[in-house]
Amino acid sequence: MGKARMEAFSDGVIAVIITVMVLELKVPHDEDIAALAPLFPVFLTYVLSFVYIGIYWNNHHHMLHACSQVTGSVLWANLHLLFWLSLVPFTTGWMGENHFAAVPTALYGGVLLMAAIAYWILQQLIIAAQGPDSLLKKAVGGDWKGKLSPFVYVVAILAAFKAQWISQALYFAVALIWLVPDKRIENALRSKELP
Amino acid sequence: MGKARMEAFSDGVIAVIITVMVLELKVPHDEDIAALAPLFPVFLTYVLSFVYIGIYWNNHHHMLHACSQVTGSVLWANLHLLFWLSLVPFTTGWMGENHFAAVPTALYGGVLLMAAIAYWILQQLIIAAQGPDSLLKKAVGGDWKGKLSPFVYVVAILAAFKAQWISQALYFAVALIWLVPDKRIENALRSKELP
Amino acid sequence: MGKARMEAFSDGVIAVIITVMVLELKVPHDEDIAALAPLFPVFLTYVLSFVYIGIYWNNHHHMLHACSQVTGSVLWANLHLLFWLSLVPFTTGWMGENHFAAVPTALYGGVLLMAAIAYWILQQLIIAAQGPDSLLKKAVGGDWKGKLSPFVYVVAILAAFKAQWISQALYFAVALIWLVPDKRIENALRSKELP
Amino acid sequence: MGKARMEAFSDGVIAVIITVMVLELKVPHDEDIAALAPLFPVFLTYVLSFVYIGIYWNNHHHMLHACSQVTGSVLWANLHLLFWLSLVPFTTGWMGENHFAAVPTALYGGVLLMAAIAYWILQQLIIAAQGPDSLLKKAVGGDWKGKLSPFVYVVAILAAFKAQWISQALYFAVALIWLVPDKRIENALRSKELP
Repeated sequence: MGKARMEAFSDGVIAVIITVMVLELKVPHDEDIAALAPLFPVFLTYVLSFVYIGIYWNNHHHMLHACSQVTGSVLWANLHLLFWLSLVPFTTGWMGENHFAAVPTALYGGVLLMAAIAYWILQQLIIAAQGPDSLLKKAVGGDWKGKLSPFVYVVAILAAFKAQWISQALYFAVALIWLVPDKRIENALRSKELP
Repeated sequence: MGKARMEAFSDGVIAVIITVMVLELKVPHDEDIAALAPLFPVFLTYVLSFVYIGIYWNNHHHMLHACSQVTGSVLWANLHLLFWLSLVPFTTGWMGENHFAAVPTALYGGVLLMAAIAYWILQQLIIAAQGPDSLLKKAVGGDWKGKLSPFVYVVAILAAFKAQWISQALYFAVALIWLVPDKRIENALRSKELP
Repeated sequence: MGKARMEAFSDGVIAVIITVMVLELKVPHDEDIAALAPLFPVFLTYVLSFVYIGIYWNNHHHMLHACSQVTGSVLWANLHLLFWLSLVPFTTGWMGENHFAAVPTALYGGVLLMAAIAYWILQQLIIAAQGPDSLLKKAVGGDWKGKLSPFVYVVAILAAFKAQWISQALYFAVALIWLVPDKRIENALRSKELP
Repeated sequence: MGKARMEAFSDGVIAVIITVMVLELKVPHDEDIAALAPLFPVFLTYVLSFVYIGIYWNNHHHMLHACSQVTGSVLWANLHLLFWLSLVPFTTGWMGENHFAAVPTALYGGVLLMAAIAYWILQQLIIAAQGPDSLLKKAVGGDWKGKLSPFVYVVAILAAFKAQWISQALYFAVALIWLVPDKRIENALRSKELP
């Protein structure tokens, strides 16, 4: 079972998610700069979510590059990941429109947490399908980013009910950590291709 | 006539359908948990429809994998299937917003029924195009899932006017039956490729 | 310059157009069958437009299959065609919501007319790029469908101000004529591949 | 790291952007020609933005054609470009709805300016990844279009607060300059392929 169509479908869904989010930036009716002011938190949230979806696409890209074979459970784990990512436009819009209020901020983290878990499940299934000599397993290595992120999300969710700026700072910090492209997989692939 | 572009187009349409559905989850204006309560039935319907569209994509993926040649009538049967799937966001939104009322619940099943029939027609046309030694025909075999589903949908549609929870349970049950990936086609392909 | 990416981009745009149209079917707030009644003309228009977009995708698919090389002007003629197709969701929504009133019915035909002209220009440019032995030119032949359609659209646009049912019947008739897949190109290709 | 998936993802995002823009053309409730009048500036802006997105897709197509290898920073520079392009539907809607008022006209230019800068960064990163014998560098050559456009945008942004028609004329002029496909890259590729 080839992986090309799973990649193409994931690309399609992620492309629509990343673009549909911008529809939450509702065109204001007034024409002055003041009309943009209430949109500013929505815009900031949009930037954050765009970066997150970009990170997921990027890592997904790298992960499938190191994956040679797709099983039925991998297909469904992939759909499970896309499901949580598809909720990002909703939480983005809610958090932005309510100026980073407590519950929307917590829910934003909740969806990020579920997406992180879904990504981890997908990664484990691909590693399992590859067997003991899994290229992806070597590439991922200790996976400290993948292990750290869920804990940071949980802290951010809890912090949302005390001080939302802590949650926002944590979401921002996790995005920064991941923005560095996943050298591990690139390196493992390169060392395999150029022995 | 190659099948690659038909696959790509179907992937595109299904990717947009599955993502556009989430737009029915309208961002609430209030910022507390109570604001999410009326969205809960919409969310449940969204999950159900996401799983259904995922199942269709998955099975479509498998079916076309076992198909080597695309005729004009296959192209149109495919568009016919996409037409009914494109109505799923509408029925999802209507059933969710009206908290599983009778008519929306019946219409939801009606669109699922038409999609199931369209899928069956597409499958028959591919089998017919492949001739007596059709790989897909062997792969599909008795096709008890494909034969059972329409009857369950009809029962669910009728039940919607008596007790909607029966319809919901039936929609849920059919999704569960199909969630198991179509081992038949995978096996038939494998046995052909590794004789 | 390869044609693969132009095909992929066209597929993407057409896939979004065909799916975005369904958003004009606004989810009603009431839950009874009566709530669907005002949506019925919108639904009928949606079916008509879905078939038209499907025809364009289908013919575009066949036309590019017979095209080996893409020039800069072909790329722009293709974008020109996509531009007019992208207006179909708008005219579909307007004609449907206004129950086939005169001006929306005429505008619907106007956009179909412009799309037909854009398609013809694209076809001519591909034929010109292929030179005197153009495979597409042989395949298209007399092209009576392509020549007839614009005239029918003009008649339908004029008829819209007298009796809209004539326009609707003409739009329906043109769709029927085109629904038959373009055997000409398929035959020309086959006769070339199997000499 | 292959470029195919980056191309596919970019195509997907650009296809959604170009189609989602048409949703700003809100279907009017009235059925006469007068109902279209307020939409006319929105339509004009839609045409302008469609051409701009088409130009970006076209040039992106050519640029990646001359690019053999994709690094992590190229992936992110590409996402950065897509981010600014994704804001075009918003600025298009705002400028159109407010009949080319000062601030929306300036913001429209601001997003074009940022997209131009993002494109330039992407181009530089691809050239840097290709090393001293960069095929793209030769192809781009003096790149007077790429160097001129940002300055014109800055002038147009400043002019928006004095006379918006100057800004509109400048946006139109830049689009015209770019509408000519990038012969440079095509020529460089051809001269390499046919030595």
